[in-house]
Amino acid sequence: MTGVALGEFALIDRYFRDRGAQRADVRLGVGDDGALLRLPPGEDLVAVSDTLVDGVHFPSGSDPRSVGHRALAVNLSDIAAMGGTPRWALLSLTLPSVDEAWLEAFAAGFGDLALGHGVALVGGDTTRGPLTIGVQVLGSVPAGQGLRRSGARAGDALFVSGTPGDAAAGLASLMGRSEGTDHRTGTDAPTDAAAFEARFLFPTPRVALGQALLPLASACIDVSDGLVGDLGKLAAASGCAAVLDVDALPSKAPRHCVLHGGDDYELLFTVPPARVAAVAALPGVTRIGEIRAGEGVSLREAGRETAAASAAGPAGPAGYDHFAR
Amino acid sequence: MTGVALGEFALIDRYFRDRGAQRADVRLGVGDDGALLRLPPGEDLVAVSDTLVDGVHFPSGSDPRSVGHRALAVNLSDIAAMGGTPRWALLSLTLPSVDEAWLEAFAAGFGDLALGHGVALVGGDTTRGPLTIGVQVLGSVPAGQGLRRSGARAGDALFVSGTPGDAAAGLASLMGRSEGTDHRTGTDAPTDAAAFEARFLFPTPRVALGQALLPLASACIDVSDGLVGDLGKLAAASGCAAVLDVDALPSKAPRHCVLHGGDDYELLFTVPPARVAAVAALPGVTRIGEIRAGEGVSLREAGRETAAASAAGPAGPAGYDHFAR
Repeated sequence: MTGVALGEFALIDRYFRDRGAQRADVRLGVGDDGALLRLPPGEDLVAVSDTLVDGVHFPSGSDPRSVGHRALAVNLSDIAAMGGTPRWALLSLTLPSVDEAWLEAFAAGFGDLALGHGVALVGGDTTRGPLTIGVQVLGSVPAGQGLRRSGARAGDALFVSGTPGDAAAGLASLMGRSEGTDHRTGTDAPTDAAAFEARFLFPTPRVALGQALLPLASACIDVSDGLVGDLGKLAAASGCAAVLDVDALPSKAPRHCVLHGGDDYELLFTVPPARVAAVAALPGVTRIGEIRAGEGVSLREAGRETAAASAAGPAGPAGYDHFAR
Repeated sequence: MTGVALGEFALIDRYFRDRGAQRADVRLGVGDDGALLRLPPGEDLVAVSDTLVDGVHFPSGSDPRSVGHRALAVNLSDIAAMGGTPRWALLSLTLPSVDEAWLEAFAAGFGDLALGHGVALVGGDTTRGPLTIGVQVLGSVPAGQGLRRSGARAGDALFVSGTPGDAAAGLASLMGRSEGTDHRTGTDAPTDAAAFEARFLFPTPRVALGQALLPLASACIDVSDGLVGDLGKLAAASGCAAVLDVDALPSKAPRHCVLHGGDDYELLFTVPPARVAAVAALPGVTRIGEIRAGEGVSLREAGRETAAASAAGPAGPAGYDHFAR
């Protein structure tokens, strides 16, 4: 606790005033009852909201710089999954006490990522209570063009960015658990623990990729709850089935991290045949399967197909479905 | 706990799908990574965010219908203070467990108020943790016309809606505390406890009044943290002093509830002399003071003026300043 009593506005003002971007489309920012913002003509508003709870979404005692980064990153990832351009963020911070060092580091993690994406912090409140970080990000997308989960059609190719599975392996490493063997080599626990941990602590929202996909992808979702589970959601929203080529998955993390691990914030998206060549030329994306008629998710390994656990069923051991366990 | 494991989307879908308004400007609502929304041309976006924590903003064990109502009402009140029209809400619900009866009542309280104001629920997430309700409301206001705290000028009249002080008296009654005597009559604890309690449990956001004030008021704030404290914020933002006519205050609640009680969600606003007659003709508003050159808040009682505790100082016993106590 600081010796100075800090009011709600004073706290935001003190730690966040010089963080994030300055934007001309902010007519009125932090410090009034709300923010006044100017959306570009011809664009739809994109609104996302995600909350991190201490001990649920990150281990208690986590590096506050990582907590600040992740609280914004998970929301930027939702904007990315719709092909949007993030513009403004609001922060609702519930804190058990005012710890200046914690707040400085949290604000740096949040603010550096905001600055990197040109996002202005335009509102916020602080309250006393168990550590909970609520973030909303507002952005825009050309009218009528926002990517959805529901646009996949039979025959579309399935792609993913990055290496989903790494973050769950990193979390396991941070928690001191072994998560088993490399899903491809059968060898022991990964040697790249530090790299995996960094993927959990400082995930990269794929904002530029999402924007590049606007004219290319038929459907898109971000991988927050696990590859199989999120693919199931995309397939169900699209009224289709999906086949996942397990051998094509790019992560070296243990198998169940790759299939069911959350927290990667990569983009999982579908592409009509005519546009597959254009997408395959993008950096950092891998073709990992296809969309078919039917329903559910199948795994294809060594030429054989098996049904994966349905998205409506319980999540895997590393998958996040907070009320299912 | 329900026997059914509910995922994040399933929970929102089950309890909130048929709540609130349906709006044509919602291009994509709950169930994707984010919402796609269409703002009217020529309007600025108004964005507000407020969080309620169990045991901090409402007594533990409160009627869940009241909790749902208040979680939305405090945000609608922020929109009202800017003269905005609320359009869309997002809900971030952190719950210790899935209690179906609680969720039904919460959703009814939230949804009925949303419906009454034409607000659509367009996004949300649920996580497991200590009971915390984060709400964001998005709305609009004609471009460049949003009300601010900073527009008051010396010579403006000061008005308030409703009867601030009642909610704090109601909360005290609910908590079984005596809050002393009527500030005007010196008589014992109020006889209208039930009416006071209703003002705490089901406050009325003054959305229509805020819109009516757009061409009339020079500055506006909602009374969430106490009349003296919020007046101090308005005066400080405007670079002025304010005088509060204590004898003119319309509430029958105990004195310190009236001066320092929070949770009323009434509008406190200033009006240039030429528009005072038009404002005085509005229903439910009372002239309670004036704006002067200088700084700080003074109380005028029986013809004498005294300085009130500064807004930067500690809040009164019923005032909310979560990190100051």
